[in-house]
Amino acid sequence: MRPQPSDTIAAVATPPGRGGVGIIRVSGPAARDVAEKLFRSPRPDFSGLRPYRLHHGTFHAPGGRLLDEGMAAFMPGPGSYTGEDTAELFCHGSPAVLAAVLSAAYALGARPAEAGEFTKRAFLNGRLDLSQAEAVAELIAARGAVQADLALNRLTGGMGEAARELGQALADLLAGICLAVDFPEEEVECLPREAFADGVAAAVARIDALLEAEGRAAPYRQGATVALFGKVNAGKSSLFNALLGTDRAIVTELPGTTRDYLEESLDLDGLPVRLTDTAGLRATDDAIEDMGKKRGLEKARRATLGLYVVDGSTPYVPDAEAEAVLAELGPGKVLLVATKADLPPAEPAPLAALAGRGIQGVAVSSRTGHGLTGLVAAIRAMLTAEAGPPEPDTPAPSDREAAALSAARAELAALAEDITAGIPYDLMGVRLETAAGLVADITGETTPDDVLNAVFDRFCIGK
Amino acid sequence: MRPQPSDTIAAVATPPGRGGVGIIRVSGPAARDVAEKLFRSPRPDFSGLRPYRLHHGTFHAPGGRLLDEGMAAFMPGPGSYTGEDTAELFCHGSPAVLAAVLSAAYALGARPAEAGEFTKRAFLNGRLDLSQAEAVAELIAARGAVQADLALNRLTGGMGEAARELGQALADLLAGICLAVDFPEEEVECLPREAFADGVAAAVARIDALLEAEGRAAPYRQGATVALFGKVNAGKSSLFNALLGTDRAIVTELPGTTRDYLEESLDLDGLPVRLTDTAGLRATDDAIEDMGKKRGLEKARRATLGLYVVDGSTPYVPDAEAEAVLAELGPGKVLLVATKADLPPAEPAPLAALAGRGIQGVAVSSRTGHGLTGLVAAIRAMLTAEAGPPEPDTPAPSDREAAALSAARAELAALAEDITAGIPYDLMGVRLETAAGLVADITGETTPDDVLNAVFDRFCIGK
Repeated sequence: MRPQPSDTIAAVATPPGRGGVGIIRVSGPAARDVAEKLFRSPRPDFSGLRPYRLHHGTFHAPGGRLLDEGMAAFMPGPGSYTGEDTAELFCHGSPAVLAAVLSAAYALGARPAEAGEFTKRAFLNGRLDLSQAEAVAELIAARGAVQADLALNRLTGGMGEAARELGQALADLLAGICLAVDFPEEEVECLPREAFADGVAAAVARIDALLEAEGRAAPYRQGATVALFGKVNAGKSSLFNALLGTDRAIVTELPGTTRDYLEESLDLDGLPVRLTDTAGLRATDDAIEDMGKKRGLEKARRATLGLYVVDGSTPYVPDAEAEAVLAELGPGKVLLVATKADLPPAEPAPLAALAGRGIQGVAVSSRTGHGLTGLVAAIRAMLTAEAGPPEPDTPAPSDREAAALSAARAELAALAEDITAGIPYDLMGVRLETAAGLVADITGETTPDDVLNAVFDRFCIGK
Repeated sequence: MRPQPSDTIAAVATPPGRGGVGIIRVSGPAARDVAEKLFRSPRPDFSGLRPYRLHHGTFHAPGGRLLDEGMAAFMPGPGSYTGEDTAELFCHGSPAVLAAVLSAAYALGARPAEAGEFTKRAFLNGRLDLSQAEAVAELIAARGAVQADLALNRLTGGMGEAARELGQALADLLAGICLAVDFPEEEVECLPREAFADGVAAAVARIDALLEAEGRAAPYRQGATVALFGKVNAGKSSLFNALLGTDRAIVTELPGTTRDYLEESLDLDGLPVRLTDTAGLRATDDAIEDMGKKRGLEKARRATLGLYVVDGSTPYVPDAEAEAVLAELGPGKVLLVATKADLPPAEPAPLAALAGRGIQGVAVSSRTGHGLTGLVAAIRAMLTAEAGPPEPDTPAPSDREAAALSAARAELAALAEDITAGIPYDLMGVRLETAAGLVADITGETTPDDVLNAVFDRFCIGK
């Protein structure tokens, strides 16, 4: 049993910034006391915060100064998110107001919550397993509808259930061994070596299915980086803006306007993409521009996909720096974009010049919008070619969970070899116990504190 | 009586971005129905959302797809913020989740709320007067504790009360006139001309006090712009960073690094300041750098206060472009900052060179921090010199309210002259009625729709 926290924490639970409503969450033994000292009801018959009820009133600093008007609610433990007594104060979504109310909560005995501390308390109180707790962070961070669905599957216990089923299968195998070891002389019903090998193979197959689900989920979770590169005046900034539908990049007729790189987020049907517009490639003796160009080239070399932007209305002339990026990425990670398709095409056409080298290409006009839909489809196809989309009913493990599953799989694979090699039953138990321990880490039953801290450190404050 | 809205609106009520909790607010006749179709309780005895009660459960799209897990609450009209039936759905603070739940609310019959529409409904339903409604927007936008207090004074009805008192005083005067006009032959008790003049003077004095409060509030509401200007390598970017305590500006040894201007917000004891770091002044043939320099100079010329940054370790050489900014701002709006105070001072010292021209100066070292506290105090003193700080108990009218009060004051001042000139009682009534109508606009009792729309258009969506 882990020790239970005895102090009371408080934080803003809503996103930073301005909005209609902002929430201060207070959790711990003094939550009710802090909230009732902050809150005043205008009702003469008010006799304290009633559980799960919204009360309208005003919030005041310990000296009585009015801080805001809003609502307060109290949720007694264990029937709250954290499993502890929890109060929520619904204030105006004003940073100045929230800072003042939070200060008052601190003055009344709460302390600032650490990142993820509310969810950590929910985990410690058994309200969520570790996989579900991680899923909360993934859901909040979700960069698209697909990742949100992946997180919801884990939040509602999908991964924990898979881990418990796997753990049960390993426990059953372990029980079979124990029987054979503890009663070697007896004619007890013992798991035959072949059935044992089959059980291990089934566990490995189950792990493989989960790891495959992680592979399918990966592009939707990590997102992709797509970098535009090419010579100055090839039309990169116009293309960047056309893809975003905004005016984020400054587009002028002066070469070298994009001195450094610009980045924006795109959502391609649930696939999150970070689009980078690098500085145009040209020889320069301006130290800052050169620095920007170098950073842009570095971005392009490390991108998931490079968009090599060339002016389709002028004959193609190879560029040494662009060629270096092409060589590093390889044809499978580059898409040629011939811009200015509204102008008469050049001869020889850049698309034809590079098609011979196995580089796919699309002709577009950022001005008229011609070819942009096809370009987006081509980008999406190249980014998801390796793995299909996630399957709704297979939970996709997180990095941490996948690492535990991979390690468990390695133990089980080694165990399969041991079985073939004919080692005695009692030696087989060690690997099986190791694998079972790794699988149990997914739900966090025996996970050491430093691993827990690493999980919760990735949360935002207020969750 | 204004027409009551008959449709149901929905929006995200929390700030945009990621956080622990995000709220979808639904208001209108179908609010309960929309919420109950979206929400599912795990309790077998669940029989609908009970008023003012927090219910834990899950949210689902019309087809049944799980969208999130959270809490739902229903507040029946008129006991809600808007005065209408209102439901609030407490989701995870994830843009992907909130977008999905909001789409589901639209599919179930709500429509997207316009900016300020919840508060507009609160106004139309008599839950807030127009001054209080405006105060909601000011509270959310408050850039510091002082502005938040100003907004809270108005939100709790301070300005409305002042307007109603003023309106009552004008109504009393008007009643005195009516009596004199309607019963001219009678020996009725009628307001003597002197008492009438005294009453008008008292109303003018009351308006003057309110307008003075607006003057005191102005710097805390509008904030000030403080622009750093001076030659390249004078240490502007280092000073900018030292003032912010961050690394927002890129500081290098290369002249001309700050190609355009950078802006950041500072809070000087409740006084919001927008600090601008302009491009260094030097002759340049780089078109983009020149554009950045021009924009920086323009910023400095329009600033509330210019910080003229000079290198205190080298002799002062006047710069034509800096002198032009100095001439435009005038000595009262410029503070000289002599940087690099950790190095031996130059002879003649820049501070001495400019002190003779009436320009105050401070010596600082961004490297050691020497003089920074004094610089901040000097900036604050120069920005608030004209008006003292706001007085806690005098409501400070908004721009709109101040315009109405000024117009009413003009009518009353003209009326005072009319009284002295001896015009008949019945002609005095016209000006008095005009003034009373202007004062009534503060609480919005008779305010035309286009004025109302202008007020609510300034709100964020979701409030």
